[in-house]
Amino acid sequence: MRLSSIVFLVALLVGGPAFADAGLRDRAKELFQPIPSAPPAIPGETATPEKLALGKMLYFEPRLSETHDISCADCHNLSMGGVDGGALSGGHNAQLAGREVLTVLNAIFNKAQYWDGRAADLSDQVVNSVMANPKAMLKTRGGPMPINPTEHAAAKQRAVELFKGIPGYVAAFKLAFPEQSDPVAYANIGRAIALFEATLITPDAPFDRWLKGDDQALSDAQKDGLKLFIDKGCVTCHNGVNVGGGMYARFGVVKQPSAEFLPPDDWGRYAVTKAIADKYAFKVPSLRNVELTAPYFHTGATFDLKKAVALMGESQLGIELGADETDKIVAFLDSLTGRQPEVVLPILPPRTGPPAL
Amino acid sequence: MRLSSIVFLVALLVGGPAFADAGLRDRAKELFQPIPSAPPAIPGETATPEKLALGKMLYFEPRLSETHDISCADCHNLSMGGVDGGALSGGHNAQLAGREVLTVLNAIFNKAQYWDGRAADLSDQVVNSVMANPKAMLKTRGGPMPINPTEHAAAKQRAVELFKGIPGYVAAFKLAFPEQSDPVAYANIGRAIALFEATLITPDAPFDRWLKGDDQALSDAQKDGLKLFIDKGCVTCHNGVNVGGGMYARFGVVKQPSAEFLPPDDWGRYAVTKAIADKYAFKVPSLRNVELTAPYFHTGATFDLKKAVALMGESQLGIELGADETDKIVAFLDSLTGRQPEVVLPILPPRTGPPAL
Repeated sequence: MRLSSIVFLVALLVGGPAFADAGLRDRAKELFQPIPSAPPAIPGETATPEKLALGKMLYFEPRLSETHDISCADCHNLSMGGVDGGALSGGHNAQLAGREVLTVLNAIFNKAQYWDGRAADLSDQVVNSVMANPKAMLKTRGGPMPINPTEHAAAKQRAVELFKGIPGYVAAFKLAFPEQSDPVAYANIGRAIALFEATLITPDAPFDRWLKGDDQALSDAQKDGLKLFIDKGCVTCHNGVNVGGGMYARFGVVKQPSAEFLPPDDWGRYAVTKAIADKYAFKVPSLRNVELTAPYFHTGATFDLKKAVALMGESQLGIELGADETDKIVAFLDSLTGRQPEVVLPILPPRTGPPAL
Repeated sequence: MRLSSIVFLVALLVGGPAFADAGLRDRAKELFQPIPSAPPAIPGETATPEKLALGKMLYFEPRLSETHDISCADCHNLSMGGVDGGALSGGHNAQLAGREVLTVLNAIFNKAQYWDGRAADLSDQVVNSVMANPKAMLKTRGGPMPINPTEHAAAKQRAVELFKGIPGYVAAFKLAFPEQSDPVAYANIGRAIALFEATLITPDAPFDRWLKGDDQALSDAQKDGLKLFIDKGCVTCHNGVNVGGGMYARFGVVKQPSAEFLPPDDWGRYAVTKAIADKYAFKVPSLRNVELTAPYFHTGATFDLKKAVALMGESQLGIELGADETDKIVAFLDSLTGRQPEVVLPILPPRTGPPAL
C-alpha cells in the first residue's frame, strides 16, 4: 500500500468526510452563497415594524384584488413554499394557465421578477400583479397586462378609495408612513408589501449549513449530487445565493423540449426586450426550496423533479443523465429546502358602514 | 334631598358604576355566558397535538377542493373574523352568492351548522362543504348539494388518494390516528378539521370581561346598548354563549323585509325539515365578533351594522329604533369582539413525483 493511500484511509477514519469535503466546499463557495440569516435591506427603504405590519396585512388582503377574493397569499401561499401547488397555473386547471407561479420565498435575491424579468424589483412586481386581475393575468401568459391605461388608473384609484374607507387601514398607513400627509397612496401599497416580502427568506438549509462548514449537514448522496451539479454544468445558470434567479437563458438551447414544456406561443423574455436573441429565454428560476415548489417549469408541466432534472440535462446541456445521477442531483436539490418563515396571520380591519366602492 | 337620593349619589361617587352595573350584570348573566378561555371538548374526540396539527394543515389545504384552489381558510378567513368579507357570498360578486358565509369563530358553540342547520356538528359541516365544490355550492343557496351520490363517492375517493400520494400527509394521518391501520380515511379529514376548528374561539371580549365583573370593560354607551338589547327583546333570539346560534327564527316574523334581504326563493330551514312553519326560518346567527363579519344577513345585503340592527327591530320586533338607540346597540355589539386566535400558518407537505390524481 502506498503512502498516499494510507494517508487517505487515516483521513477517512480520523477526519472522516471533513477531509473529503474541503475541496468540494472550496469549489462550492466560489459558486454559491448561503441565504443570510436576516432579511436584506431594500435600497432607499427603512423596514420599520409599522411598515412590515402594514405590508403583511396587505399581503393577506383579498380586498386588494378587484374581485375581493384573491390576495398575494393565494398564489404565493406561504404554507406551500410560496407557490400555489399548480392549482391555477398548471396542473388540472391548466386551461387557466399563463405561467407557473414563481415563489415569493427569497425572491428579494433575484435579479428581476417574473419569468420574463419584466419587473425590476419586488415593489414593481407587486404593483403589476395587483393591478392586473390575477385570474385574467393568468390567461395572458404573463404578457402585457390585460387592462388598458384608463382602467388601470381607475383600478388604482378604487383600491386607494377602498382603504380610505376602512378606518383600521387609514391608521395603519399613517403609522407606516408618518412623514406623508396623504399616506393611503397607491405607491405605498407596493412599498409596504415589498418590505414584507423581503422578510420571506429561508435560511439554514442543509446545503447552507454545509457551506458554512458542517460536514454532517449533507448526506453522501447529496454531496455526490452537488459534485454532479457542478461538473455537469448545471451551475452555469444555477448559481449564487438563490442557486438561480440571476440571469436569463434560452430554454431548449441544445435540444428543444416538447410543446408541453415550451409552448411555441410564449416567447418569454422577448416580450420585454424585443431582442430576437431573447426568444424563448426565461429567467433561470431559483432552486431554493425546489422540493416544495412543484409543479416545475414556466408551464408547470411536471410535478416530477427527477423528470425536470433529466429534461434540463437534455435541453440545456445536451447530456443524458443516468438514473443514479438524477437521483443524486435531486438529493442535493432537496438540501436547498430552508427554514420556512413562521408567519402569524394578520388580523385585517373590517369594512363597516355603507360600501366605499 | 331624600335619603335614597343621597345614598345613590354616594354610591356613584364611591362605588361608581359598580353599584349601577350590579343589577344589569345580574340580568345579563341570566341571558349570556362568556366564551370560555380554553376550547371546549368535542364529545367522543380527544384533541391530541397531532390531530390538531393535521386539522390545521387540512384547514389551510387548497388541494382538499376538487379544483385545488379553495381551502376552508379562503371562505372562513382567520384574518377576517372567520368569513370572506363578502367576496364570494355577497358584495359586488353577488351573482355568485348563495348564502353569506358564517364565521368559523366560536362555531363550536352553535346548536347546529349552516344558516339552515343542515349539519348537526362541525365534522358534518366540514364533510358537506368539502365535498360540494364550494364555488358550485355558493350558487345553490346552500340547498341540496350539487353533486350526485356517485360523484360524491368518487370525489371522496379522489381526496383520499391525493393524500395517500403525499408522504408528508401519510405520516401526519398516522401520527393523528395511531390506532388505525388505514388512517388516511375520509372521515378522519372531518374529525381533524373539526378539532382544529373547535380551538378557534375568541375569549376576553370586553363584554365577557364585564360579565365577569370588570365594570370598566364597557363604556356607558355600551351598557346603555346592552340594556336596550335586553329590553327591546333582541335577547329573545340572541342569547347564550354565542349571543345567538342557539335556535331558528323566521326572518320577517312581524314585517317582511325587502327581497334584497329575504329573497323569495330561499326558504331557509324548510329545505331541511319540510315543515311549513320553517319557511323563511334561519339559524339565528351568533353576534360574537359581528364587528368583523360584515356583510350581514344570509344574503350579505348590507355592510352597515346600524342598518342591520334597525332592520331587525322592524322585521322581528315591530319597533322603530331611534338613531341614538341604534348607535348604542351597535356600541354594545362592538364589545362582542374577542381576542382573535393567533394562528401560525402550517407548512403543507409537497406533492412530488407523478401526479396521484
